Amino acid sequence: MRLTLALTFAALAALNTVSPAAAEEGMWTFDGVPTDAIRKAYGWAPDQQWLARTQAAAVRLTGGCSASFVSSEGLILTNHHCVIGCLQNLSTADSDLVAGGFNPADRARERKCPGQQAEVVTSITDATADIQGAIGTLTGEALVKARDARIAELESAGCTDRDKTRCQVVTLFGGGQYKLYKYRKYSDVRIAWAPEFQAAFFGGDPDNFNFPRYAMDAAFLRAYEDGKPVATPVHLKWNPRAPQAGEITFVVGNPGSTQRLLTETQREFQRSERLPLTLILLSEFRGRLIAEMDESPAKTREGGDELFGYENSFKALSGQFRALNDPAFTAKLTAEEADLRARVKGNAEIGDPWSEIGTAMAERRNTYFDSVFLQSGPASYSTLAGYAQTLVRAAAERGKPNNERLPGFTDSALPLTEKRLTDPVPTYPWLEELGVSFWASKAREYLGADNADVKMLLGKESPEALGKRLVTGTKLADPAYRKQLWEGGAAAIAASDDPMIRFFAALDPRARAIKTAFDRDYDAPVTAAQARLAKARFAAYGDSLYPDATFTLRLSYGQVKGWDERGKPVAPTTVMGGTYDRATGQAPYQLAKGFVDAESRIDKAAVYNFVTTNDIIGGNSGSPVIARDGSVIGAAFDGNIHSLGGNFGYDATLNRTVVVSSAAVQQALEKIWPAPALVAELAGKRPRR
Amino acid sequence: MRLTLALTFAALAALNTVSPAAAEEGMWTFDGVPTDAIRKAYGWAPDQQWLARTQAAAVRLTGGCSASFVSSEGLILTNHHCVIGCLQNLSTADSDLVAGGFNPADRARERKCPGQQAEVVTSITDATADIQGAIGTLTGEALVKARDARIAELESAGCTDRDKTRCQVVTLFGGGQYKLYKYRKYSDVRIAWAPEFQAAFFGGDPDNFNFPRYAMDAAFLRAYEDGKPVATPVHLKWNPRAPQAGEITFVVGNPGSTQRLLTETQREFQRSERLPLTLILLSEFRGRLIAEMDESPAKTREGGDELFGYENSFKALSGQFRALNDPAFTAKLTAEEADLRARVKGNAEIGDPWSEIGTAMAERRNTYFDSVFLQSGPASYSTLAGYAQTLVRAAAERGKPNNERLPGFTDSALPLTEKRLTDPVPTYPWLEELGVSFWASKAREYLGADNADVKMLLGKESPEALGKRLVTGTKLADPAYRKQLWEGGAAAIAASDDPMIRFFAALDPRARAIKTAFDRDYDAPVTAAQARLAKARFAAYGDSLYPDATFTLRLSYGQVKGWDERGKPVAPTTVMGGTYDRATGQAPYQLAKGFVDAESRIDKAAVYNFVTTNDIIGGNSGSPVIARDGSVIGAAFDGNIHSLGGNFGYDATLNRTVVVSSAAVQQALEKIWPAPALVAELAGKRPRR
Repeated sequence: MRLTLALTFAALAALNTVSPAAAEEGMWTFDGVPTDAIRKAYGWAPDQQWLARTQAAAVRLTGGCSASFVSSEGLILTNHHCVIGCLQNLSTADSDLVAGGFNPADRARERKCPGQQAEVVTSITDATADIQGAIGTLTGEALVKARDARIAELESAGCTDRDKTRCQVVTLFGGGQYKLYKYRKYSDVRIAWAPEFQAAFFGGDPDNFNFPRYAMDAAFLRAYEDGKPVATPVHLKWNPRAPQAGEITFVVGNPGSTQRLLTETQREFQRSERLPLTLILLSEFRGRLIAEMDESPAKTREGGDELFGYENSFKALSGQFRALNDPAFTAKLTAEEADLRARVKGNAEIGDPWSEIGTAMAERRNTYFDSVFLQSGPASYSTLAGYAQTLVRAAAERGKPNNERLPGFTDSALPLTEKRLTDPVPTYPWLEELGVSFWASKAREYLGADNADVKMLLGKESPEALGKRLVTGTKLADPAYRKQLWEGGAAAIAASDDPMIRFFAALDPRARAIKTAFDRDYDAPVTAAQARLAKARFAAYGDSLYPDATFTLRLSYGQVKGWDERGKPVAPTTVMGGTYDRATGQAPYQLAKGFVDAESRIDKAAVYNFVTTNDIIGGNSGSPVIARDGSVIGAAFDGNIHSLGGNFGYDATLNRTVVVSSAAVQQALEKIWPAPALVAELAGKRPRR
Repeated sequence: MRLTLALTFAALAALNTVSPAAAEEGMWTFDGVPTDAIRKAYGWAPDQQWLARTQAAAVRLTGGCSASFVSSEGLILTNHHCVIGCLQNLSTADSDLVAGGFNPADRARERKCPGQQAEVVTSITDATADIQGAIGTLTGEALVKARDARIAELESAGCTDRDKTRCQVVTLFGGGQYKLYKYRKYSDVRIAWAPEFQAAFFGGDPDNFNFPRYAMDAAFLRAYEDGKPVATPVHLKWNPRAPQAGEITFVVGNPGSTQRLLTETQREFQRSERLPLTLILLSEFRGRLIAEMDESPAKTREGGDELFGYENSFKALSGQFRALNDPAFTAKLTAEEADLRARVKGNAEIGDPWSEIGTAMAERRNTYFDSVFLQSGPASYSTLAGYAQTLVRAAAERGKPNNERLPGFTDSALPLTEKRLTDPVPTYPWLEELGVSFWASKAREYLGADNADVKMLLGKESPEALGKRLVTGTKLADPAYRKQLWEGGAAAIAASDDPMIRFFAALDPRARAIKTAFDRDYDAPVTAAQARLAKARFAAYGDSLYPDATFTLRLSYGQVKGWDERGKPVAPTTVMGGTYDRATGQAPYQLAKGFVDAESRIDKAAVYNFVTTNDIIGGNSGSPVIARDGSVIGAAFDGNIHSLGGNFGYDATLNRTVVVSSAAVQQALEKIWPAPALVAELAGKRPRR
């Protein structure tokens, strides 16, 4: 699983309110780990030292994944699917690092991943009073501006060394709390080892989100600074032993987003508008991509990562949609809302945030298609279009004072924005054209051929002609040109005759107007209402609550445990040998070459994948799975099919995290795609150079 | 619009119950036309003679469309999109009758449409007591068997001359009434005239279901018998005058299916299961088809009709889905159910059909994926697979007594089944492979790679390999081979090593088991409950009700009238000249060649398309729009976007029928693609030979 689809609005506060929280439920912030509850459930809980060490070893990857340091020399464990984009970017027609894997002969041949940045939390400071104070009694657009301005100021003041640190204010409980997170950042991240794609993603889309599973979804990166590996004395101990049924496990990572305490009206919007529209759009794009990739081996290779991303999102959102259409599942959520309403009834300070949100939601329904199709235009489907959007916006925003800029263009955000814009990444014209044309055809379909915005953007062009003209004509595939426009600022943008730049220059005023309306009619009233909802929750249930996921560091606890699938028990582990039984010889169930070649050497009884009860969600991909002693026994890479409803609520009986065991990775490093230097490094031995 | 997606369960009884029916609401059977209500609304109503003449001129096309006789020599008016399949079947790489249109120099060159049959209702007899008597107090599978057996017997006895007649028992009010319809049938239907596709479908998918509109969606067929045009002394008078705002209009045709009185639980199933799943599947297939058609002009041509059908269905079902997610729309339906429940509360004879249906619905949810993916297998997406399914089933069914056979294989149904199976139709291997592979990939995705049925059907093959093997290996594209297997019966099927036949032979037992379970757990209890629901409605609201649409002859009345779209009035007519303003030069807004060439000759002020308040739905395509004097002033070809909710309920303020005027067709016949013989024939003159 991975975090690919950003949510279009802020996540909300969350916890299981009516029934007591299941032992395993919760994605806990490191300043709020419920050690009493853990001790009660497992007879032991981590102490402050354990937590501090783990936090220092926990890595966030800016592409939307989690990871951890596992050696003293900056070695990072994560999932293969978290580095597949990097592998694809570094591949050529002659050298396909996705298909063949990456196993450099020595450290000097580790290769930089474009756009990748690794981040480690170094401090968390409460900023609730500060930001709520800045908001005061403001409403509408003024509320959003005041909040965002204060966030920009705090982030800028908190991290003056912007080469090595990054500050981010995190909104928790939908505005009930604000925290300033400070990160040590590493902008030079290199790929150190990756297995063959066919081993990492054995079973492909059919097996994705399912279990039993046989996937070597692991890879290693390494953080560099000044051209040298970063020293990481604090790291997790590599522990290639088999997991034990029932043993306690911790997943430490960055769950991307949950929506566990949406109000009924917000959930209904998800169910009736956002999820079906997104699923339908994803499906058609998926179909177009599959058929076009089928035209040639080159296209198959070039579109692979994109297809995986779309299929992964599709399946994840399908699971959410199914959950919201399951009366048994939603009855619990409905009961929770009713309980909270009853508890704060007549409390004048709380008022009726539910109906305020309902009013905002009705407004949002009216303008939803505008948001979907015009807010980012073709940037949702095309890398080059994304560059153009960033450049056009940056040119305008960078001329403003820090506290008046749009999020993404404040002092604290600019370095990563610039890195992502200017790092060299290959793009493929056919894929870019497909994206732009698809966007245009859907914008016309949903907004209507007679819509004024559609007419402005398409003129008399067909979607296909627009895609061809913009992609053929743009020079944005060249990083040097992007850099030049970035540095040239507003004057360079105004002077550019690049068709993609001109397209976004034409769209931008409308996109800004849509955002302004969204801020005024949705974000502001909902932020105000959610702050009171959070207050209501704290009043009703105390303060031992966890906030919804926000792609910031969380800890979840659980145990190695299978589940009952319609009355049949599912064992918690699979073994390496099972791969051979499941292989059919046809995609996506072919054996990887390494599995064929090494069959006689592999320990077929070694645990391959396993499941735990940890509460996770997309963004947790690559998270270390940590044993009681603080060592890492695997990397979380997926949830089972039942985990998909986890976006809205956790079900301890069914919801499972899927993990690739350290034991299996050890087999891979020793026997399948041998990397003796890494084996030694993971064992804590100084590797031979 | 057209009827492409057959419903998976029988339509239910329907009417507007709480508020009085709007003047225009209703798709009335010819034995129940509400002349009093029409007279009250318009000061005039058709008499029995008017109705009898119109019924005799009304034609049903077995492809899912409506039509009418408009000359004394068997000339039939319908929509272009009702004959596009025929045109495509008759096209070759050298002669594209879709793109270029069809305008034969003389009648001898009119060409037979494969699979097409024209039918005219000659009598309607009530069979309610007969069939309800046969059902008696039976339940479960026995109920379904008894009902279907009695239907087969009545149909067989009613039409002994199966060359020229066809009998069909129609289930109305979901089992509240049964009627035996007898048809005169014409199995030799030829294409007589069709405009260029680009004129017929100007504006393509973006304009589909929208208005204002500029589409020449008309065509002419001719019925033949014994090699000669059929004499049709009773026909509608062709009337190429402009429609007048406010004038009364009748649409006479065969609306395919409505679901206006589903219970809440049935509607919820549509909303949460059937509609989203169907939309998602259609979207991905649409995407694959678009991308694959884009590969070559040949594929663009070969996939055209299929793509149109999928896009049309997608848009129609999207409108249904939106309607069911619109609280204002569903509130009315909910109120209607509550009103009926209140009126029959405590009536022991009625009982509680709502909760019986709810129970059946819950069962249906559990097995829904099985029905979708295994009931017909790849036959849903592949013509060749459909042949195989029919052949395998027919071989088993034809060996049984008439009253024990599955519907579709009874004596009364066999002639059309055989005609459709054996008429020569071109198939395209790439399109067939796409269909089979897509089905297989989705079956595996939704049922799971470990599902026993999936394993049985796919074995170790990938979906792509299965598609390739079945399509490359089958000989079913050859009509002679199909005929041979049809005639060879069970022995020929058992002996055949055709891979498509073998595939369906393996699937058939499972498909039959699924149908048996469906009959027992859903069809039987719902049929019983619906019969009592109908009784409840008749008791509560009298007997001036219209049944849900069943692809049988109906009359709707209304008037030429625009509507208000978000406060802005939409005029009821467009003119020919508007086409030139809307044209962009790029697909789908290029001008047809005929429009370019004839620009100076065309009367640009002539009415092109217009809208009326008639209550229609898919299946009505091609219906004559008839003036008070019984003459035909246009052919209905679409509904506006608001008409899509019409599946569940009619809204007189917004719901509109879209018509191509006879005046525009006259322009086309005289000036654009000249057909002087047809012009003379339509004017009632004996054409020159």
